[in-house]
This record gives sequence, C-alpha cells and structure tokens, in this order.
Amino acid sequence: MAKTPETEHPVKAFGWAARDTSGTFSPFNFSRRATGERDVQFKVLYCGICHSDLHMSKNEWGITQYPIVPGHEIVGVVTEVGSKVEKYKIGDKVGVGCLVGSCGQCDQCSIDLENYCPKQIWSFNSTYHDGTILYGGFSDIMVADESFIIRWPENLPQNVGAPLLCAGITMYSPLRYFGLDKPGLNVGIVGLGGLGHVGVKFAKAFGAKVTIISTSSSKKKEAIEHLGADEFLVSSDPEQMQAAASTLDGIIDTVSAVHPLGPLLSLLKPHSKLIIVGNPGKPLEVPIFPILSGRKAVVGSAIGGQKEVQEMIDFAAKHNVFPDVEMIPLDYLNTAMERLLKSDVKYRFVIDVAKSLKSK
Amino acid sequence: MAKTPETEHPVKAFGWAARDTSGTFSPFNFSRRATGERDVQFKVLYCGICHSDLHMSKNEWGITQYPIVPGHEIVGVVTEVGSKVEKYKIGDKVGVGCLVGSCGQCDQCSIDLENYCPKQIWSFNSTYHDGTILYGGFSDIMVADESFIIRWPENLPQNVGAPLLCAGITMYSPLRYFGLDKPGLNVGIVGLGGLGHVGVKFAKAFGAKVTIISTSSSKKKEAIEHLGADEFLVSSDPEQMQAAASTLDGIIDTVSAVHPLGPLLSLLKPHSKLIIVGNPGKPLEVPIFPILSGRKAVVGSAIGGQKEVQEMIDFAAKHNVFPDVEMIPLDYLNTAMERLLKSDVKYRFVIDVAKSLKSK
Repeated sequence: MAKTPETEHPVKAFGWAARDTSGTFSPFNFSRRATGERDVQFKVLYCGICHSDLHMSKNEWGITQYPIVPGHEIVGVVTEVGSKVEKYKIGDKVGVGCLVGSCGQCDQCSIDLENYCPKQIWSFNSTYHDGTILYGGFSDIMVADESFIIRWPENLPQNVGAPLLCAGITMYSPLRYFGLDKPGLNVGIVGLGGLGHVGVKFAKAFGAKVTIISTSSSKKKEAIEHLGADEFLVSSDPEQMQAAASTLDGIIDTVSAVHPLGPLLSLLKPHSKLIIVGNPGKPLEVPIFPILSGRKAVVGSAIGGQKEVQEMIDFAAKHNVFPDVEMIPLDYLNTAMERLLKSDVKYRFVIDVAKSLKSK
Repeated sequence: MAKTPETEHPVKAFGWAARDTSGTFSPFNFSRRATGERDVQFKVLYCGICHSDLHMSKNEWGITQYPIVPGHEIVGVVTEVGSKVEKYKIGDKVGVGCLVGSCGQCDQCSIDLENYCPKQIWSFNSTYHDGTILYGGFSDIMVADESFIIRWPENLPQNVGAPLLCAGITMYSPLRYFGLDKPGLNVGIVGLGGLGHVGVKFAKAFGAKVTIISTSSSKKKEAIEHLGADEFLVSSDPEQMQAAASTLDGIIDTVSAVHPLGPLLSLLKPHSKLIIVGNPGKPLEVPIFPILSGRKAVVGSAIGGQKEVQEMIDFAAKHNVFPDVEMIPLDYLNTAMERLLKSDVKYRFVIDVAKSLKSK
C-alpha cells in the first residue's frame, strides 16, 4: 500500500493544507520524520504568513505539489534533539526560515550562502534528502537539521519576531551586501507591505535616512509618523520625483508586480543600485540610457544564508527591530489570505499556532 | 548679420558634415575658436568612426543639430598652446575622445568621473561654455581645454590607436571598475564589432579567459585564431549554453539592438554582472527570477573619465592593445557609413584625415 502523508513518517503532525489551485485551506493530518541524529524537533508556537505562501497555495508559480502546508517564518520551542546535535537542547527557543537544506559542498555553501546553492531545499513543497515532500509551519510540529535552526534571542518576542525569518532577512541582506548599512546614507524603499515596513526599520537601525516611494500618498502619514520614515515620495507626481532626482544611495524594490523602473532609476545617485527583492513573475523593462549615463544597476537579492539569518535576528533583537503583526488563529487562515491579496494587513499576519490548537 | 559656422570663430577649419537625416556627408567649411589660454590646438591626423557617429549623423537619437561634423576618436599633433597650458607644447602627440568639457564642480567631476557629470560636453553636437556648437574630428584641426587632452604614448601608433579613445575606454573602464581585471577570471563579451574586439584584447591583457558570445558561429575562427579569444558560444545553441551555465565572472554586452538578456544571465556565476555598454534606444527586458536566485546584476557603463582614459591609453601602449583598423580617406566616408551599418568592417574604420586633405 502506498504511503500517505499521514503514514510515511513515524511522528504524527497536524496542520492546515491547501488541496488545489483554489488555495482554500483546511485541516490536514500528516507526519514528520523521526528526529535524526543531527535533527532538532520543535513545537511550533507561531508562524508568519508571507505573500509567497499565498502564491504557492494557488500554484501561481507552477511548482506546487498538493496537498501543500506553507509557512516559512516558523518559531517555537525545542522538544527533542538528535544524538549528535551540539548547539540546541530541549526547551531552547528556535526558528526556521525559508531553507532547511542545501548541498553543503558547492561554492555558495562553502561561503555560507546556502540561499544561492542550486540544490537548496525550501521549508515546504521541496523534496528532502530522504525523498519525501516537506511541509511548512502552518502546523503543530517541525523538524530540521540543526544547521538550519536559528537560535532565538531572549529579548525578541517570538510572535512579532517570526516574520524576520523571511521578510526580515530579505531586506537585511541587501542592505548589508550592497553597503547600505552605513549611517547617513539615503535609502529608498518601494512598497510598504510585509517586506517594506521591516526594511524601513532595519534601514533606520543602520542610521539611514529612509525615503518611501509609493504610487499614492495614502500611506504617507503612517510611514512617517508610525514607521519612522524620513521622506515619502509619490511616484506619479513628476514635481516630487524631479526634486528627488539623483538623491538616493540605493533603493530596495519590494513590489511583486510588473511596474516601471525608469522613475526609480532616476532617483538614484550615479553608481547606485536598484535592488529587486519581489518577483513579479514576468520580466521587467529596464530603460538603458539611465543605467549607462549613471553606471546604475538593477540587481536581485533573495533572502540570506543561515549565518546571515542568525546575524540578522541578533541585530533585530539588539536594535528592537520588531515587525508590526496582526495575530490570528489557524482557522482564520482563509480570511487572512483573502485580506493579504488586498494588502489589507499592517503589516504581517502571524498565526498563533499553539494557542489555536490548544483551544480545539 | 547672423554668424555662420564659417564666420563665428577666427580659425578656419574644414571637415565633412552631414546636413540632414539622410546622414550623407559632404565637404564643410567652418571655424574653430581662437586658442584660449588653457586651450590646446592640434592638427588632426586620424579619426576613428564609431557607431554613434552613424546614429548621430542620421539623428537617430533625436538630438542632432545640423550641420553635424562627428568624430570623437581624434588624434594629432599640437600646433598651438594657450599661455596657461602647462602639460603640452607644440609638436606633442595628443588625442581627444568623447568629452571636451564638464562642470568641474559636481560630485562626479571631483572624483575624476567627468563622464558621469550631468553637464558633460561632448566633442561634437554639444554646446560649449562659449555658447557655440562643437564640431568633431572628421576635420582638419581641433581645439580643446588641456584638461580634456590625452597625452599620446610614443610607442602607440596614432592611426590604429585612435579607436581606443571611445571603443577602448568603453571596454576598459567596466573591466576595471567591476573587478574583471584580475588574472584567471572568466570574462564574456557579447558582440564582436568595434567595441567587442577591443574588449577581447584588454581582457586578455588583464589575464582573463575570454568567451565570445554570438548569435552565429560565423566569427568563431576569427575570434579564436586571430583575436585570441579562448571560447566561442553560439547563444542559439541550447546545449552549448547549458554546458556553460554559471561559468562566467562577468559579461560585457556591446550589442546596441534589442536582444534577450535571459540567456546571458544564465551564463553568469552568482553575484556577477551583465554590463551593458551598447544603447539599443529601447528598454531591455530583464527576467527577474535569474537575478533574484543568483543575486545577479544588469548594470550600465559609459566611457570613462579623463584620468582613466589616460590610464587606458598608457596601459594599451604598454601591453600592445592595438585595435584592428581599416584606414580610409575622408571622401570614402559615405561608403564607410554604409558598410558600418552592415557591420562590414574589421573592426574599426579610421579616417586618414591629414593624408586625405594633403592629396586634394
């Protein structure tokens, strides 16, 4: 008899899964592997909801294997460790982000950039080393190799901190790698959702002057008064854009839809970079004259390696970089996804997984 | 009476000009300014023909002011110097490239990057500080501020070396700035025309392994046997492209027509750059997944500052980086432009200006 998700592994698990391209979630009994000698098993307390969970639940990138249990901003408390685990013990606060495996041998893995390993293994919808499909953090229990476990700092609340594991590192890594982590630099951020709002907080923590670039002025008050951004530019206002021409040292563009890059490139100083972190799923048109005449770049960046994720979490704890979250129960998941589609959340949903299950 | 090109300045000059969008050249009497106290006047011996001269002669970029005398790879011998000129004397071999002026005060000028100064003044079709329109090197005599004069090395022939002043610096500057000047790196070059062939020579001089990427195999033998390229990839051959995936440390793309960037990005190692130096006049589509998943960049580069042009010329002289040229007389200009349009030149036309005029 073919093994089912519920019987293929020895450890019983429960979560919410989408079963088809409707993306509708419902309760799902499955199983997790027994804790291997280098594995850490943990009880999931909270899990953030990223826009990519929504894309994947509806198979919008064409790679979804149903049933799918998304969730890759996963935090909890260690319940079991393998015999060769060195860094963690039962009761430790931990987290797992986007990745749970990589080849461990390539050029990228050798410099702690598992996020650029061609054989990287994602927390869900990926095939693990043992040949089984992985399920993510919209579930009660998690297991991962200790190399992909993040130690959670004591003073960082696990619920509000969960989104750092994807949204946080997505913004932190390019700020660091592209040298936008120096005090006094002018950093632009396009889009003020889950990614953008964390980007403002990290950039401010690095000492930057932060400019939000948005298609409308509706978020201006919030961006400046609540999030602490310094400037707010409406990209459809030619006067504002002209006045800000060639003033930014770098821009992180979080928009995951097709949009014009020319106005953004015009805001950059010469030799600066427009860093794309959202995936619109289609090519973006790059006007050539602006990149030639200012030696400007359009460059991508995707999450970070494990070492950098740990560095980011520790930095966030030290500098009070706390995402703004709306806590929800598991059975609110379908409504949350509908609201996320309309960007109706400030700024990240986090599922209160343990409480949801306890009350059942 | 309104001043004409022939009467507005005191120094008589002769060249070949295009008069309308046909781009047809014919003899043209005009004038040059008197040698100012910081000016160097020189007799033009040779002038290269760049593809941008062709674009400009036909007003293809919409900025041409007729009559136009193009030419911005100009070399010759000093005939007069102003009272405050310090570095040059009569009889010196010199050159002038794309630029003859800039604001001298902005952030870019202050770090020797006049080529990114927003007020840069080009060698022709630009308005000079005195308010008059400039004429380029398809002419008998040239005058420029000594800051924009390049000292010509003794062992670099002026005729074959002329194209270095635009084609050479266009390739040298990005190789240097983007760190592709280290021995052993794998450098790709797209397009094997005036720019590409000089790029091969500079990259080889830096010690790189050079791969030419072309749409057809027709130039393979020439590229490897004559120019010294190490590899030749036909971009339409999926097997060749797959075998070379993620092998290049950087690519310089010289193609000035709309073309797909996805296949080129696939050849880059993670964290590497596709450097655009050609201007197709329209936006290029950048596929986003490849730049995200490999932290890759699409970046522009435009010529170089005066300090770097001098460095490049001295490097070329020292390492025997000599462009391959076809010498032509001035009255061959219209035929040369027709052939250039068909890429029927190996690899750069250079006008033998002085000889052409002497024989009249």
